[in-house]
Amino acid sequence: MKKTLLLTFLIIALNSWNALRAEDGYRLWLRYDLVSDPIKLTQYRDCVRNYLVAGNSPTLSAAREELHLGLSGLLGSGIPETHTIDHDGVLVAGKPTDALLANLNLADKLKDAGREGYVIFNTTLNKRKSIVIAANDDSGVLYGVFHFLKLLQTHQDLTGLSVSSVPKIKIRILNHWDNLDRTVERGYAGFSLWDWHKLPDYIDPRYRDYARANASLGINGSVVTNVNANALVLTPAYLEKVAALAGVFRPYGIRIYLTARFNAPMELDGFSTADPLDPEVAKWWTAKVNEIYKYIPDFGGFVVKANSEGQPGPQNYNRTHADGANMLAAALEPHHGIVMWRAFVYDDKVPDDRHKQAYTEFKPYDGTLKENVLIQVKNGAIDFQPREPFHPLFGAMPKTPLMMEFQITQEYLGFASHFVYLATLFKECLDSDTHAKGPGSTVARVIDGSLDNHTLSGMAGVANIGNDRNWCGHPFAQANWYSFGRLAWNHELAAEEIADEWIRMTFTNEKGTVEQIKSMMMASREITVNYMTPLGLHHIMGRGHHYGPGPWVKGGRPDWTSVYYHRADSVGIGFDRTASGSNAAGQYFPPVEKMFGSLEQCPEKYLLWFHHVPWDYKLKSGKTLWNALCDTYYSGVDSVRWLQRTWNKLEGKIDPERFNHVKMLLTIQEKEAVLWRNSCILYFQTFSGKPIPEGLEKPEHPLAYYEKLAFPYAPGIRPRW
Amino acid sequence: MKKTLLLTFLIIALNSWNALRAEDGYRLWLRYDLVSDPIKLTQYRDCVRNYLVAGNSPTLSAAREELHLGLSGLLGSGIPETHTIDHDGVLVAGKPTDALLANLNLADKLKDAGREGYVIFNTTLNKRKSIVIAANDDSGVLYGVFHFLKLLQTHQDLTGLSVSSVPKIKIRILNHWDNLDRTVERGYAGFSLWDWHKLPDYIDPRYRDYARANASLGINGSVVTNVNANALVLTPAYLEKVAALAGVFRPYGIRIYLTARFNAPMELDGFSTADPLDPEVAKWWTAKVNEIYKYIPDFGGFVVKANSEGQPGPQNYNRTHADGANMLAAALEPHHGIVMWRAFVYDDKVPDDRHKQAYTEFKPYDGTLKENVLIQVKNGAIDFQPREPFHPLFGAMPKTPLMMEFQITQEYLGFASHFVYLATLFKECLDSDTHAKGPGSTVARVIDGSLDNHTLSGMAGVANIGNDRNWCGHPFAQANWYSFGRLAWNHELAAEEIADEWIRMTFTNEKGTVEQIKSMMMASREITVNYMTPLGLHHIMGRGHHYGPGPWVKGGRPDWTSVYYHRADSVGIGFDRTASGSNAAGQYFPPVEKMFGSLEQCPEKYLLWFHHVPWDYKLKSGKTLWNALCDTYYSGVDSVRWLQRTWNKLEGKIDPERFNHVKMLLTIQEKEAVLWRNSCILYFQTFSGKPIPEGLEKPEHPLAYYEKLAFPYAPGIRPRW
Repeated sequence: MKKTLLLTFLIIALNSWNALRAEDGYRLWLRYDLVSDPIKLTQYRDCVRNYLVAGNSPTLSAAREELHLGLSGLLGSGIPETHTIDHDGVLVAGKPTDALLANLNLADKLKDAGREGYVIFNTTLNKRKSIVIAANDDSGVLYGVFHFLKLLQTHQDLTGLSVSSVPKIKIRILNHWDNLDRTVERGYAGFSLWDWHKLPDYIDPRYRDYARANASLGINGSVVTNVNANALVLTPAYLEKVAALAGVFRPYGIRIYLTARFNAPMELDGFSTADPLDPEVAKWWTAKVNEIYKYIPDFGGFVVKANSEGQPGPQNYNRTHADGANMLAAALEPHHGIVMWRAFVYDDKVPDDRHKQAYTEFKPYDGTLKENVLIQVKNGAIDFQPREPFHPLFGAMPKTPLMMEFQITQEYLGFASHFVYLATLFKECLDSDTHAKGPGSTVARVIDGSLDNHTLSGMAGVANIGNDRNWCGHPFAQANWYSFGRLAWNHELAAEEIADEWIRMTFTNEKGTVEQIKSMMMASREITVNYMTPLGLHHIMGRGHHYGPGPWVKGGRPDWTSVYYHRADSVGIGFDRTASGSNAAGQYFPPVEKMFGSLEQCPEKYLLWFHHVPWDYKLKSGKTLWNALCDTYYSGVDSVRWLQRTWNKLEGKIDPERFNHVKMLLTIQEKEAVLWRNSCILYFQTFSGKPIPEGLEKPEHPLAYYEKLAFPYAPGIRPRW
Repeated sequence: MKKTLLLTFLIIALNSWNALRAEDGYRLWLRYDLVSDPIKLTQYRDCVRNYLVAGNSPTLSAAREELHLGLSGLLGSGIPETHTIDHDGVLVAGKPTDALLANLNLADKLKDAGREGYVIFNTTLNKRKSIVIAANDDSGVLYGVFHFLKLLQTHQDLTGLSVSSVPKIKIRILNHWDNLDRTVERGYAGFSLWDWHKLPDYIDPRYRDYARANASLGINGSVVTNVNANALVLTPAYLEKVAALAGVFRPYGIRIYLTARFNAPMELDGFSTADPLDPEVAKWWTAKVNEIYKYIPDFGGFVVKANSEGQPGPQNYNRTHADGANMLAAALEPHHGIVMWRAFVYDDKVPDDRHKQAYTEFKPYDGTLKENVLIQVKNGAIDFQPREPFHPLFGAMPKTPLMMEFQITQEYLGFASHFVYLATLFKECLDSDTHAKGPGSTVARVIDGSLDNHTLSGMAGVANIGNDRNWCGHPFAQANWYSFGRLAWNHELAAEEIADEWIRMTFTNEKGTVEQIKSMMMASREITVNYMTPLGLHHIMGRGHHYGPGPWVKGGRPDWTSVYYHRADSVGIGFDRTASGSNAAGQYFPPVEKMFGSLEQCPEKYLLWFHHVPWDYKLKSGKTLWNALCDTYYSGVDSVRWLQRTWNKLEGKIDPERFNHVKMLLTIQEKEAVLWRNSCILYFQTFSGKPIPEGLEKPEHPLAYYEKLAFPYAPGIRPRW
């Protein structure tokens, strides 16, 4: 081929490039497009002319491949791997034991880094200017590599680097509520990633990209099955499939976990009991666990939802949660596996206040659990509402490692259709002060083990990942996966800081656009609270599917209704959880109890959570409760329209595919926000008897219209036949 | 930016291109990669320097966009649209009414082309060498554009073009068995494309790409809901969603159809009856149809599965299928909509032979149906088996347009895991001679209306499309969508010809590779028959899910068992459908009846379909039936291993992503072929009492092992809770 022909080819091919590759969101925050600033690009290419990963292991190969992919994308081609350092600009990744890095005093630099921490710094090697990524273990090297690539993605300076990063929490884990038939309970981004039918032989390339994305955040565990568990996953046919997934995840530092169905010995092997104190049952679990470890030598352990929403558990045999957890923990102990036992329990008995149940049930177990048991506690005491006060168990079980369970999937926050950045929700909880050991006893310090000196610590996120091309359905739902992972690594990061880096990696480094998107993200969760459940309202969504508003839901089990939670009547609205009511406030430590329990001191965002408040009660603003309620619902809708306007200004600043995707979803969100507002206002008005304040647009339909709407195929639930 | 910097940018970006775009199969056969042969590329760029699409309409815009996308990909950039012809090399697409094309005598060239046919030829316009794509209507122009792009994709010569193409069949339609909760009955490529929850506001870009792919084949209809119908889709909330889909499909010449649940007046509006002769019922349907046309002015009509497998129908009210079909047809008639009434009926009564049921039921209706009713007949009389003789209804209802129903999704052919090219199956049926009007009365001529002078004609394919990234699960399952569409347009095409063009468009034009892949495709269906159901065996798959072998299935309704169909006993095996048995053979025209009914003349591929044959019966090869059965099962497995070896030789010849994908799936296929072979041989051996012939590998496990295997989560069925 002649040279001119080649050049023609080159130019032709390049120009047709953009037309052919739509920005569909598949690449998440690991896009690795060419650095857009030519000055920065030149600087980077000077600093990183080659890369060298010392040593060999599957994890180091993953690090090497990521560097290849990342650098060839971000800096273009011509950044080859090298094995020697004979010029400036070699990026070196390795461990203190690597000869190349022997003179760098790494042992000292990494003395607090553990297996997963890492450092990144400029130095000279063989008298050549180099950048070094170092860690005590391979997984730390991989994490450091992702961190380094992020520096390029976010246009950071590569001179004077002095990064040192250590995770604050040990188990950083996703919980997939995925069923073996690929439906996902409370999943809104298509169906399960795990194609169980074709496993173990067909390995979808997405499994590896899933692992890469997690590793880039430091997520080191994945529970691949639903907490509403299916015992079949413990049979050889499925363990072989699970092992295949584990094989893909392993190089990325991700251990696989399963949910254990408590009565599996009965369902799989015809036992007449699953009593945890029955020696035969314990023997069955020991044998089963040993079998699992034959398939998956680094199996992580079990998550258990027991005696809750119909799941079997030790209480079926008059045993305690502690009996159940300890029995499984004993089977896992020799293999260094753990049990994550969920505190989200409620059984067929309706309590006086659901809020109090987990605390009442679990606090007495403190100090009775084996060392490899964590109690997994949801951020709030009800169930992943748009806003909840922190769970009273945090700080209340000092002898037990409590792990956090956040929900990343938006079961109660508009599914995958609403633009809601959850880092502000996560942070609100983590930064809450339990006062367990005086001021500063934040939830974060309970969770990370520092408050009570636990070495085992964990944070779980209920995954929002499905088989949608962009993983999470909403382009901005990716930010929730991202921020969960970042906060699990370092809960001291600010929500804004996380948003900033995510936007830069995911969309653009252009400052104006970054700021505009960030303003939307930072406001988004409060906006959703405002059009759904302002002023401490909670659990007023549609029954079953949890889609849309259902403040009128009543009948059947009281604590599954809305009226149980909002308690609206002619006098006022809200759940009295003070001493005059259920006294759930009494489960908090005294300074917190005093704050929540006092009508005056209670933050207004939690007002109706803790108090039944008269319609005419004057809020700090001077408005009556009714008027404030109306104003807040209306402002929620107005703010969605502000989101729309702000987004529309970004046309042309980001790729058209994702621009249009978000734009269309905002249309849905606006409609649904209006649906929430109108439904709630009209319904609560039947109690307050007061008019909608002047100047506010009147609902399009009467209440009966909204009450009659049905959504039989809202996603995220088990299909009904 | 300086020039050198720009060039660096250019080279860098181009080189990083390949690393970033994995060949994931999303682009189907419309890949439009740069023509790989530089000589051809230069020739093409000479012939096509600009393009011009005359006129304006949404369909012409689609044609324009496709030319832009296709030409900028295939020929690289620099092929702009133009509005004048002042140089050689303008590609012009338009209609006879366009002034530009006035002197070309198009009316004559297009006199038999109808609305959808087109011509492509070289000519001079304004004394300049041009290529013209012309059609009587916009949809024909669009089809011609796709044809033209295919010429480039398959490296055809662009001089001396004289293409003239007219569809032989009028309704070319996909049937999606998709439910409103996104599960797909008998779907094996993930879940439904249609995201009903987010419609109408969120329009997934896949909808358009789906329409493009169909238009490229000339598919002009899509039934978006399951034949096991849900009346909800007829309610306003869903019609609004359907209308949004219709809006995406419309420019691509695709009309939308729905499945009509026969008792919808009862389910939606509280009627006490759905009797088709009840005037109130007829009025309800008329009003409903009028309502649908308000949402979708070009709505195509209904598909109905009535009184079959539990679906409601006219027989519930002692009315006939004709009564039901005519009632709906009357409602649709003013709007030019049609009814496709399925002949696949069986109700709660077990017939003496399922094979005979559709014929017995439907033949008497011939001549009683309204003009806008088609009877939709499956290719064979049982149910989409790996091999069936053609359906005896073909040719038996000369006064009625019969349309073909093929199954593209591989319900009985290994799901989306097995490499099976179905064009050979489709052709085997289409080319079968019914002898209805003497020799040459092929099924194809029944279907296309030419045998009995029908103007309405149709071919339906049960879609194999899901939300898997590559649409169909198996990269080669795309070829089945493709070949269905191609045969619906022109059933005279040879399977090999279709494979050839599909391979060139989908993989490569490299001759050796094309031939190698083609040899696999052409052999693949026979291979599958051999390891599943050789010699006319049928319906011996696992119960319910239809996954894997189940020759032992018995109990429950007889015609849902395997033993009902294979009738193995100590004497022999096979279903006697001759005059001495059920006499299903008697439903065929005499020459066919004679052939099928005679043990000697019956083609051996249908032997056990029509005859109960002794184990020691000598086949034409001289082998006993038992030995031939064994040999065929074994050769099926051996041939899968040949597929594996042949495929492995292609490493490096095609992209690694699809190479690996197919390689992994062939591993599954090999395992499952062995499973089929061992299960069937061991089971049938319990009747024949004869040894597996010398030299054949012995099954790994005893029969009991295979009988015990359970697959509770095989995909494609409704999840079980």
